[in-house]
Amino acid sequence: MNPTLVEVLRGGALESHHAGAVAVIDADGGVLAAVGDIDRPIFPRSAVKALQALPLVESNAAERLRLNDDELALACASHNGEPEHVRTAAGMLAKAGVDASVLECGVHWPYLDTVAREIAARHEAPTALNNNCSGKHAGFVCLACALMGWNDSGLNLRQYVRGYVAPEHPVMLEVTDALQATTGFDLAHAPRGIDGCSVPTFAIPLRHLALAFARLGSGVGLREGHVRAARRLRDAVARSPFMVAGTGRFDTRVIERLGERVFCKVGAEGVYCAAVPEHGLGVAIKVDDGNNARAAEVAMAAVIEALLPLNDADASFMRGFSDLTLRNWNGIAVGALRASDALRRALPARPDSRQTSV
Amino acid sequence: MNPTLVEVLRGGALESHHAGAVAVIDADGGVLAAVGDIDRPIFPRSAVKALQALPLVESNAAERLRLNDDELALACASHNGEPEHVRTAAGMLAKAGVDASVLECGVHWPYLDTVAREIAARHEAPTALNNNCSGKHAGFVCLACALMGWNDSGLNLRQYVRGYVAPEHPVMLEVTDALQATTGFDLAHAPRGIDGCSVPTFAIPLRHLALAFARLGSGVGLREGHVRAARRLRDAVARSPFMVAGTGRFDTRVIERLGERVFCKVGAEGVYCAAVPEHGLGVAIKVDDGNNARAAEVAMAAVIEALLPLNDADASFMRGFSDLTLRNWNGIAVGALRASDALRRALPARPDSRQTSV
Repeated sequence: MNPTLVEVLRGGALESHHAGAVAVIDADGGVLAAVGDIDRPIFPRSAVKALQALPLVESNAAERLRLNDDELALACASHNGEPEHVRTAAGMLAKAGVDASVLECGVHWPYLDTVAREIAARHEAPTALNNNCSGKHAGFVCLACALMGWNDSGLNLRQYVRGYVAPEHPVMLEVTDALQATTGFDLAHAPRGIDGCSVPTFAIPLRHLALAFARLGSGVGLREGHVRAARRLRDAVARSPFMVAGTGRFDTRVIERLGERVFCKVGAEGVYCAAVPEHGLGVAIKVDDGNNARAAEVAMAAVIEALLPLNDADASFMRGFSDLTLRNWNGIAVGALRASDALRRALPARPDSRQTSV
Repeated sequence: MNPTLVEVLRGGALESHHAGAVAVIDADGGVLAAVGDIDRPIFPRSAVKALQALPLVESNAAERLRLNDDELALACASHNGEPEHVRTAAGMLAKAGVDASVLECGVHWPYLDTVAREIAARHEAPTALNNNCSGKHAGFVCLACALMGWNDSGLNLRQYVRGYVAPEHPVMLEVTDALQATTGFDLAHAPRGIDGCSVPTFAIPLRHLALAFARLGSGVGLREGHVRAARRLRDAVARSPFMVAGTGRFDTRVIERLGERVFCKVGAEGVYCAAVPEHGLGVAIKVDDGNNARAAEVAMAAVIEALLPLNDADASFMRGFSDLTLRNWNGIAVGALRASDALRRALPARPDSRQTSV
């Protein structure tokens, strides 16, 4: 059983609690903190989109198609489906010479309710561009341009990418190779599932996911093409944090505030990964219940607070995510959502602290 | 630590899991099943709306205002805010001589996205009538008519109900008295919080919540006014199941199917309560993480399957809630959501089985 990472209080009493596991790892695989079981393989879902985007840069597709910061950040995104995200995804596809009809991610209403209601108010329906994964998929299509040898015909690209979400498609083989190389985990023997957007998702232990993010942030232990690609993607996200999530979202707000000091990324089912480049550390979190992002965000905020030296204003900003007041429909304070003492105690006060286990 | 009640699978591997506790109790307090800790007080939230509605009938307010089945079911509801729910809540208030401006539940967009988008498409905004608790609150206002002695002036009622959500208001004292009487738990010393709709919520052990529902379903152990009120509310919900939740919702679908054989009611933060009148049993469930209803619904479906003799069609219908296929945005089967073996083993195969503990 994993320990409680996050508590939900109402009227001063414990209402709900979220158990889970946290790994904080350096690029050599050294364990700075291990809370709960960090060796059970878990599906990282969208938390590893930046790893899945490495081939887009390594292949030179990003450079040749002149993908800009917004577009590369969107390739790493689980976005809100806001108009800026939709336009940017469409722009990536246009640079590859195709349109949204090649996307195989499926369609859903935008995550952000206000945007969904704006679409409804125009009596329109969402498209695949509104899918939170449309940027990742547009990146896959751009990668395909390189993999097929830069045949310039849009018709041929359209044929080439058909079925690109299948594990054995050349695009997905490249993406899986990047996951394998960065995590150092044997994906050929890992449990494999299908993600919400239909691409494969491999179950990988938190220890290996955190290692991959330590490498993503530091370059240490990555092959040359991935060093360059990781740097380019991190820079893009630091300069275009809106693209990686959107209005009001944790990843956007934290990266807007802390810039290149943190690259954090949410995944479905309670997963969070982050790179903390200045200390060469990677973080991976899984909340056991996986129900939505509320607990994983709180835990990630507490981890960032513990790992990064922050000025008072930044510390207070992060505390607003790790220990927050819950309000009801009338705006009355009814409770709190906060990182557990068990989690805070298990985190290193400084990145050079010794390993702590719970 | 409570055991796992519900598992989430992806690609055949365990992706997430939900721990929690379940109590199945008869009207004499006998324990048919106890899974996990059933003695820790938990906030039942909206799961006890039917108990909170007992004074509305006991006071004769329901009879004197000629509240019909739809209206009494809505008084017990966490509804979707669909047009039928809105009209019914407005009708209840009109019978009391007031309008929605007296409601103190706050405003939120309807739970059902399609309804929210219909409102947006009309370039309108939601009102307090769309709040999932508007029926409960309209019922409180109707109760106030009786408590103030049937002064017919709408102005006076308006003054009388001001602040009715406060614990010391005569309306809320009546509601708390009903909770106290049916659960048999000392609420004066229970942790007290504020609910989403601003009324008090008291932390009560699952054992006592299940007991209250056993009493609600059987009448055994209730005072005379509550026996009559419980019967009237159960009949109303059985005849108007749409009102208690709405399109696509578990409570509506199960009660539409099984009628008066089950009265089940969801609460926020992973709570579920139910009465199974034909066996005189009550059920109360709390999923520890409380994140939303997905796990509590699965657990409740498994409990209903275990407790009720069902024909093949009804058993298959319930199995669709307790062991279901998860599909992604493209409709591809990606996993499963199902009651754990630990939960199923702990439930009595027949209502006369012996107590089982996990």
